Amino acid sequence: MKDIQGMPGTLGGLVLRFFQFAFAAVSLCVMATTSDFPSVTAFCYLVAAVSLQSVWSLSLAIVDIYALLVRRCLRNSRIVSLFTVGDGITSTLTFAAACASAGITVLIGNDLDNCAVNHCTRFETATAMAFLSWFAVSPSFLLNFWSLASK
Amino acid sequence: MKDIQGMPGTLGGLVLRFFQFAFAAVSLCVMATTSDFPSVTAFCYLVAAVSLQSVWSLSLAIVDIYALLVRRCLRNSRIVSLFTVGDGITSTLTFAAACASAGITVLIGNDLDNCAVNHCTRFETATAMAFLSWFAVSPSFLLNFWSLASK
Repeated sequence: MKDIQGMPGTLGGLVLRFFQFAFAAVSLCVMATTSDFPSVTAFCYLVAAVSLQSVWSLSLAIVDIYALLVRRCLRNSRIVSLFTVGDGITSTLTFAAACASAGITVLIGNDLDNCAVNHCTRFETATAMAFLSWFAVSPSFLLNFWSLASK
Repeated sequence: MKDIQGMPGTLGGLVLRFFQFAFAAVSLCVMATTSDFPSVTAFCYLVAAVSLQSVWSLSLAIVDIYALLVRRCLRNSRIVSLFTVGDGITSTLTFAAACASAGITVLIGNDLDNCAVNHCTRFETATAMAFLSWFAVSPSFLLNFWSLASK
């Protein structure tokens, strides 16, 4: 099977990793700079999940850059299964955190109509960025899983 | 590639479908019988998502029963890709709904300490059942995706 753009060790894969890291980092910064995020469990969880996501994506971006520079193929079965498991775990955590935050943001904004006393815009931005990060992780996970299965 | 238990048309697949349907249906019943679920957007979304999940799982259980009875193989590429896409969509929706409800349940129970005036136990039960339903859908999705890729 040939290399599809987006798999580890390709330029498409590196671009995906970069977007995952960028969105997760922005989400982390926006959420961590609000003063009252520790009062809501789901927001603390979001901070933890996007931290993990950004560390994971950054490490894999570095691996991708190395593989591209020395023109090494990363289609080893063990490496791909490690990447698949890692992507699966981090993407599930990020998605869960984003959904929990979205539920609470909608509760504050629409159901309780309590946006004036809260940092609604910041919470919404952090949630949206976490979702975008998840959107960038999903193709990585699915492509890794696909290449693992089609070996 | 041989049939793995859990793929469509196998007994394991039928058992998975049955659990998906059962957990989603219990979650739907528990949540829909609370009087104040329509006041929270995430709970309405949970009801919608687990309804879709139970309808989808029930239909696929019927297809599985039919395939087992007439001993037909369901390893047609088109059928498997339809099942994979459907499982992917319903599992994502169920998981998102479960996470959003979990975020709000934790907010009500732990952060606001407001369980006395709310149906906390029921909300928690419905959320837990939605998570269990998602746990049963994930292997179906991954096995379908695997068998699609390894063709």
